[in-house]
Amino acid sequence: MTDKKHSLDTVNIQYYTFAEHPNELKLVSGKSLGPITLAYETYGELNKEKSNAILVGHALSGDAHAAGFHKGDKNPGWWDGLIGPQKAIDTDKYFVICSNVIGGCKGSTGPASINPKTSKPYGLDFPIITIEDMVRAEKYLIDHLGIKRLLSVIGGSMGGMQALQWVALYPDHVQSAIPIATALKHSPQQIAFDEVGRQAVMADPTWNKGDYYDKPDKPEKGLAVARMIGHITYMSDTSMEEKFSRRLKDKDYNFDFTADFEVEGYLRYRGDNFVKRFDPNSYLYITKAMDYFDVSGEKLISKAKASSVRFLVIAFKSDWLYPPYQVQDIVRQLKIKGCDATYCEVKSTYGHDAFLLEIEEETHLIKHFLNKTFHGYNVVR
Amino acid sequence: MTDKKHSLDTVNIQYYTFAEHPNELKLVSGKSLGPITLAYETYGELNKEKSNAILVGHALSGDAHAAGFHKGDKNPGWWDGLIGPQKAIDTDKYFVICSNVIGGCKGSTGPASINPKTSKPYGLDFPIITIEDMVRAEKYLIDHLGIKRLLSVIGGSMGGMQALQWVALYPDHVQSAIPIATALKHSPQQIAFDEVGRQAVMADPTWNKGDYYDKPDKPEKGLAVARMIGHITYMSDTSMEEKFSRRLKDKDYNFDFTADFEVEGYLRYRGDNFVKRFDPNSYLYITKAMDYFDVSGEKLISKAKASSVRFLVIAFKSDWLYPPYQVQDIVRQLKIKGCDATYCEVKSTYGHDAFLLEIEEETHLIKHFLNKTFHGYNVVR
Repeated sequence: MTDKKHSLDTVNIQYYTFAEHPNELKLVSGKSLGPITLAYETYGELNKEKSNAILVGHALSGDAHAAGFHKGDKNPGWWDGLIGPQKAIDTDKYFVICSNVIGGCKGSTGPASINPKTSKPYGLDFPIITIEDMVRAEKYLIDHLGIKRLLSVIGGSMGGMQALQWVALYPDHVQSAIPIATALKHSPQQIAFDEVGRQAVMADPTWNKGDYYDKPDKPEKGLAVARMIGHITYMSDTSMEEKFSRRLKDKDYNFDFTADFEVEGYLRYRGDNFVKRFDPNSYLYITKAMDYFDVSGEKLISKAKASSVRFLVIAFKSDWLYPPYQVQDIVRQLKIKGCDATYCEVKSTYGHDAFLLEIEEETHLIKHFLNKTFHGYNVVR
Repeated sequence: MTDKKHSLDTVNIQYYTFAEHPNELKLVSGKSLGPITLAYETYGELNKEKSNAILVGHALSGDAHAAGFHKGDKNPGWWDGLIGPQKAIDTDKYFVICSNVIGGCKGSTGPASINPKTSKPYGLDFPIITIEDMVRAEKYLIDHLGIKRLLSVIGGSMGGMQALQWVALYPDHVQSAIPIATALKHSPQQIAFDEVGRQAVMADPTWNKGDYYDKPDKPEKGLAVARMIGHITYMSDTSMEEKFSRRLKDKDYNFDFTADFEVEGYLRYRGDNFVKRFDPNSYLYITKAMDYFDVSGEKLISKAKASSVRFLVIAFKSDWLYPPYQVQDIVRQLKIKGCDATYCEVKSTYGHDAFLLEIEEETHLIKHFLNKTFHGYNVVR
């Protein structure tokens, strides 16, 4: 997956600031936000026609660093298996952009950013944002880069929501979309898992109603619990069985409340690690945005039809967080309206995590789809 | 379900104390526990031959109050739909016993009980207990009641584990077993959900390493989060969709972190209610007991075969916490050894909660099975 030979060289994070007073971004909630900075990375070169740009959306805990290596880093970006020279999203051919969402904590404006009105971190004064707001912010970036029409918008999980939202908002600026392991809207079960994660953060007294940035403690324990819940939903029953079964950390049961089983140790490790790199308030804002997301009904399909956007929609058999029936529903809605949509269900046991792990299968599907979209486009024009 | 005409009259909780010094119960962990009090209820009359006794095991958050009404109560016991005159577990024919497990907090000895060595609540000085220990304690009660052989041991979820454990430990004292929505052992996913619940409790600073009984605050927020996680796993994606869909509590999104969706309000309500009636330490001890439980391999089946115990094993199609494949595995293991085991999969959408809700289906299955077991037994003798 991290084949250095086919990896990008050192990549750098960049920043773009916009929506400065008095031109703040008007949000779905009715509130405004500005100035906004988006942290983003780009890979490959934009061609003369500006027709080879692909926007990649990240998932809940992702960031702008989708591919290549930051100077001195041992690990590449989170989708390096798919993005790079001769990979599925071929940086020898395409110009790839990935930005951290607003509300995030990896360089883009979010609740940990300085509120220009108070010169302190926003905390809960940060307005509630939606996937639509995230995409509107991304549109500023795309405009800034001089791109009129994206060859494709692609992403898994929340990244897939962004892909769908791009079509719903800017159908004439998107030639194709590849939503992966995602849904038109969250089911009550998905909302419930998000809500329990939020409750875990907010139950931590150091959360202090979001005001912890200048305090010695932040709600790391609460966020770790939220992340542990998340991790269970990202894996499948089968992948957990394959990875851990009932193996013990030590020879026998400890007969106390330390971690007896390997799966317990793994969850604690993942929880503890996550809090080092993620802002608890961002966890609240981003999960809320996902719960509010809803492009069912006419919102997406009427736009998709009018602008003849092409869709490649991918699901994973063992994904029970975004189960295939939800992904199929996207395709069904599109097909009913006569849109050009292809559905592929990958036989993976990795659960929701599959969108990050099933690189080979995704490569087969995405590479050809992009190729046809790109060359078809050039010919038709 | 709570048909008063066919319900038991006022029922009373009773207590039995045993394992007093120097006869403490030797636990699986190597530690000892005593004295032990079991809170229990009985319904119906024990016949002269003492051949009509049925032991009912409760689930994680259950108690000894399985049926009938406590004086002044509006709601009956947790399995009143199944237990009562002319019901599936017919108290006109059978003598029914249900006791609160050790480690619990509903009258039986648990971490909130007074430690005779310190005259203070045990807290984390309470020894880790296992399902085997719970069942050994139940055996004391059965002996005390003068019952040599139980007509049946029946229960759902952890109650089903007790039923299986009874056969594994005391095969000659059990004529039949009805494990429902349960497993031979927890999968890593089941352990993971339990572990996250425990982490939620232990992350609450008022948990204070289990020492909160004389403090003004107890880890209610942590326990509420644990319970919310539990509730998601007790329902199914379908039952949540049917019950809540994406209905809002108010007209529109609140654009804050209050409960927007009905499902969020429901989870918060269930979490907040639970902490009023359950001891957080008991939650830790009982979930740990379930995670340690393992009667796979020869532990159960060799005993079941030698003593010709009859099994009725019930699963629910939409139960993803104790999925049918796990329940089928119990039956498969038993059948391979030539044991008398019947498997029934009920087409319910209720998820794991179905064992508490699918009363009519369970009645059909259980009533006839008990009838045949009871009369067969009487004839053979």
